[in-house]
Amino acid sequence: MSENKAMAPSLPPNLRAAGPDASRSTSASRLLTLVHHHRQLSRASLTRLTGLNRSTISVLISHLTAQQLVVESAAVGGSQVGRPSPQVSPHPGLVALAVNPEIDAVTIGLVGLGGRVIKKIRYSTERIPTAAEAVNIAAAVIDGMRGELEANYRVVGAGIAVPGLVTSADGTVRYAPHLGWDSEPLADMFAGLTGYPAFVANDASLAAEAEMVFGAGTGIKNLVYLNGGASGIGGGIISEGRLLAGASGYAGELGHTFVRSDGLPCHCGSRGCLETEVRQAPLVELLKLATDDPSAIGPALCASTDPAVAAEVARQIGFLAIALRNVVNIFNPGAIVLDGFLAALHAAAPDALESAVRAQSMREPASQVLISPASLGADLMMVGAAELAFAGFLADPVGYFGEQPAIS
Amino acid sequence: MSENKAMAPSLPPNLRAAGPDASRSTSASRLLTLVHHHRQLSRASLTRLTGLNRSTISVLISHLTAQQLVVESAAVGGSQVGRPSPQVSPHPGLVALAVNPEIDAVTIGLVGLGGRVIKKIRYSTERIPTAAEAVNIAAAVIDGMRGELEANYRVVGAGIAVPGLVTSADGTVRYAPHLGWDSEPLADMFAGLTGYPAFVANDASLAAEAEMVFGAGTGIKNLVYLNGGASGIGGGIISEGRLLAGASGYAGELGHTFVRSDGLPCHCGSRGCLETEVRQAPLVELLKLATDDPSAIGPALCASTDPAVAAEVARQIGFLAIALRNVVNIFNPGAIVLDGFLAALHAAAPDALESAVRAQSMREPASQVLISPASLGADLMMVGAAELAFAGFLADPVGYFGEQPAIS
Repeated sequence: MSENKAMAPSLPPNLRAAGPDASRSTSASRLLTLVHHHRQLSRASLTRLTGLNRSTISVLISHLTAQQLVVESAAVGGSQVGRPSPQVSPHPGLVALAVNPEIDAVTIGLVGLGGRVIKKIRYSTERIPTAAEAVNIAAAVIDGMRGELEANYRVVGAGIAVPGLVTSADGTVRYAPHLGWDSEPLADMFAGLTGYPAFVANDASLAAEAEMVFGAGTGIKNLVYLNGGASGIGGGIISEGRLLAGASGYAGELGHTFVRSDGLPCHCGSRGCLETEVRQAPLVELLKLATDDPSAIGPALCASTDPAVAAEVARQIGFLAIALRNVVNIFNPGAIVLDGFLAALHAAAPDALESAVRAQSMREPASQVLISPASLGADLMMVGAAELAFAGFLADPVGYFGEQPAIS
Repeated sequence: MSENKAMAPSLPPNLRAAGPDASRSTSASRLLTLVHHHRQLSRASLTRLTGLNRSTISVLISHLTAQQLVVESAAVGGSQVGRPSPQVSPHPGLVALAVNPEIDAVTIGLVGLGGRVIKKIRYSTERIPTAAEAVNIAAAVIDGMRGELEANYRVVGAGIAVPGLVTSADGTVRYAPHLGWDSEPLADMFAGLTGYPAFVANDASLAAEAEMVFGAGTGIKNLVYLNGGASGIGGGIISEGRLLAGASGYAGELGHTFVRSDGLPCHCGSRGCLETEVRQAPLVELLKLATDDPSAIGPALCASTDPAVAAEVARQIGFLAIALRNVVNIFNPGAIVLDGFLAALHAAAPDALESAVRAQSMREPASQVLISPASLGADLMMVGAAELAFAGFLADPVGYFGEQPAIS
């Protein structure tokens, strides 16, 4: 072994670039990121997608297998000419923690590499949690999982998806109006209590990225994501495959798009915002639902024959179409992905929403946009938050755990 | 000479990367782009900004000087310690043609490297020009300049800034509603008549880039540009230094942002668009101006004491603030740059506009945005269009002219 901290065969010189530590990970990072995004890939596909030659791929996979970062399974299929190619998957022991505080719950998840949700615990709160309470709840749930985590998993860290404005560089929530949080150093608070490194970002931004990587927007590089929940409407905008951050990471507040001149005051201080006109609460009330789980709203809307429900759906679709018309004219997106109760509105009247958006938008961009519901469903926020924690690991997978012993 | 097509000393091997043609330009491209953006730079600054060593810079400048791409002038200053450093500027013979068709004129410009407008000819049209007419007018003006062009300049090509939706890849104007153009292969039409390669893009997008490189937004990487003229309002959005294009290059139509529920029908087919409420014509009428040149509107608005003018300014500022509030909430820009009659509205009541935008926008992004008039003034569209033509040249300056003789 040429690297004294290495616990597995070191990489051959042709896989190294600048310094040994930096270089080691370059090819490993590309390969593991592909395996993560595709969940399973054959050696043949990896050779094709990376442009590396077969023997290099072979050495790299041996190295990553020895480090317990990937597993190789028997080749599948055999109908094609030539030897079937073995399948490479993420090692099932590699996980990220995902945390999502909301106004009525804190959800904690365990997500495997490949975006697979292994476990999800939703802790309902009596009242809106403070930042300290949300972190305490998450830490308690994680303490309950700790025996299992230590026995079976290596945890790359935690991603926290917050409905608010976040400075990701230092993991601080600047302002989360629905939660009533102001300048909370959430990453430090979480790391202090749990011992896991934590990363924080806006929930809708994370969801947008997750939908692009694993969901409805796969392969679409210009995508606008809009999520509606009990606490309002958030958005994430992806241009050329990159999330728009803006000057300080606050971009994407599509819930505060202007849609009505005589609109009601919004908590943001303005009037006529999308999220004051298009709301989940009136739908839940009219449908007499016992839950405000967005996944229950879609089927109930579709089943309803109540004209009052139909009128409210039509009213909300009118205002949603105005916001989406702005989105189409300003961004020329390949896809608009709707989530939460906005997906339910779309499901209730897809033609009405889509034709209203197309009628109001400029002809060319209107003809190109796909309007679709999010496809990751209830797992979306967990997958998105976990992506945040996986990002640093995927950038340098070989060096990430340092001398930490692999799972026995 | 190691390259048989070279007309100047070839670059030494340490400035080469892959193939000789590709490599030659890598360092030359970086250096010339810096000289273009800064207009003049000392050898010492070039050494610092490129990270190349002094002798490499020296060889490179000799090569570019021999190719008549840069000129070196005597060192200025001498108050600092050490020898004063010679100043490197773009060669004054390197130019791009700039063309900007509008509803009432076609403007043709000659722009030097460094964004210097050498000549500008505005040809007023009796009626809205067709695409063929606009190209004919431009070609006639350029024919008039041809003797001068051939004697004194090397022309890298032409950039055409069009108020409409453009597919830049093939230089086709898909749809320019104010001009009434539909699917016009403008680049091919222009190249066919003039013999110069032509590139086409949306006017506001080009202006946004020019303001970022040479104007009010210098150094600001997240910038939204809005221009108001006789034919409406266009926009360009720059995120992390890159223009947002969208799925097919149609992004940035901020003039069709929704601002009024009971608004008038817009030519785009919708209602309540920014550009149906915020218009130059009523300002020109109320001010009894003989011209609709936007540069005349600002001073006239500031000088006016007519309450009807004040009321119209207040009305328009109200609607403009709604659109800018969306911009702030959605993009979190470092700067909003206003041009044309929008700059005039800002000049007439800067505090009213800025406080209305900040009052309606979310706190954090509102606190970070600078609202300012465009600084390139009447030259902006010429500089922006020329940038389009310079882009290909700057990517490969050494190989660009091939065997074409330099100016004698």
